[in-house]
Amino acid sequence: MNHLPNSFESLIQSLSQLPGIGKKTAMRLAMYIVDHKDKIGPEFASSLTRIGTELTNCRICGHYADQELCTICADPKRENNVVCVVESVKDLIAIEETGQFHGRYHVLGGLISPIDGVGPDDIRIQSLLDRIASEEITELIMAISSTIEGDTTLYYISQQIGGRVTLSSIARGVAFGGELEYADDFTLGRAILRRTPVEHLFNGDH
Amino acid sequence: MNHLPNSFESLIQSLSQLPGIGKKTAMRLAMYIVDHKDKIGPEFASSLTRIGTELTNCRICGHYADQELCTICADPKRENNVVCVVESVKDLIAIEETGQFHGRYHVLGGLISPIDGVGPDDIRIQSLLDRIASEEITELIMAISSTIEGDTTLYYISQQIGGRVTLSSIARGVAFGGELEYADDFTLGRAILRRTPVEHLFNGDH
Repeated sequence: MNHLPNSFESLIQSLSQLPGIGKKTAMRLAMYIVDHKDKIGPEFASSLTRIGTELTNCRICGHYADQELCTICADPKRENNVVCVVESVKDLIAIEETGQFHGRYHVLGGLISPIDGVGPDDIRIQSLLDRIASEEITELIMAISSTIEGDTTLYYISQQIGGRVTLSSIARGVAFGGELEYADDFTLGRAILRRTPVEHLFNGDH
Repeated sequence: MNHLPNSFESLIQSLSQLPGIGKKTAMRLAMYIVDHKDKIGPEFASSLTRIGTELTNCRICGHYADQELCTICADPKRENNVVCVVESVKDLIAIEETGQFHGRYHVLGGLISPIDGVGPDDIRIQSLLDRIASEEITELIMAISSTIEGDTTLYYISQQIGGRVTLSSIARGVAFGGELEYADDFTLGRAILRRTPVEHLFNGDH
């Protein structure tokens, strides 16, 4: 497109690298930025620069952090004894936004996947074992996908831990508000096998 | 969201200012940028900074430009005598991408709209009249919306020009490839009134 100035072209180029943003959308966004350049531009540029210079990963749990520790690990009000193990920061944020978990996290940064060449040493399992050895952890809540990779990772971690802490997995079943007829066969079948006694549902913590 | 570091929050904030990008999408894009920060971040930040420091408007036509003149006005191969008048740079780009126009442009930067308090002096009409007085323009192609504002602007410009140059408007009618039954009544009615003799369609330039 030689009818556009270089600076504008390069902004379109940067925007269209983002997932789900094609050339047309990139152009529309770029025009919006140009129309509001004094308001959006400098702040946006500085937040991108800060991502490069300030954002790192928490030394303990692997979550995004601006300091050595993330805001969760640095928060004295979070419970020390329960750690929720997740594959990625994305999953951590999803759980955090439910407001139902008050412990700490451990971000594995992937799952064991022999087919992709990802072994136990390629993800943050050793640092999890180190935490179990040095912190006062009593329970690990495994909140990872129930895929072959997830199950392999779960099995490996359970073997390494060898009963030192309680290992639990998030509940799986038909979604709340979900209609039974739309649930997949596997989920519905497991939901019947793992049924919950109704009196448990009225215990006050569900 | 106090579970996220400031630098990450501020990136989400910047992204969610863009049109059509909500909080969820902004977070997804921000994570993508973090995951690819060395590849995307610095380049993206620099293109945003360049928009603020380099991008300006062409002194002649009002199109985006990095220099005093835009690439179109600076191009000696473009025809000097035909000028296409558009409301915005967005419309200029749309026309430019058809590859059917080889003249130059004039971006009005708006349309006359008494109800919004936009008068002839608030858009780039005087600079258009100056161009007609100083350049060798023989035809103005008006490519502006056929709304009340567009028609008012068209009428005002035609009055100001007073026959000094040929004034034409882009063709309006049923879209090529469009099915008649889906065309709106007004467009279809006008398309019948402004019908084109068939022999004109085979003249080679349609």
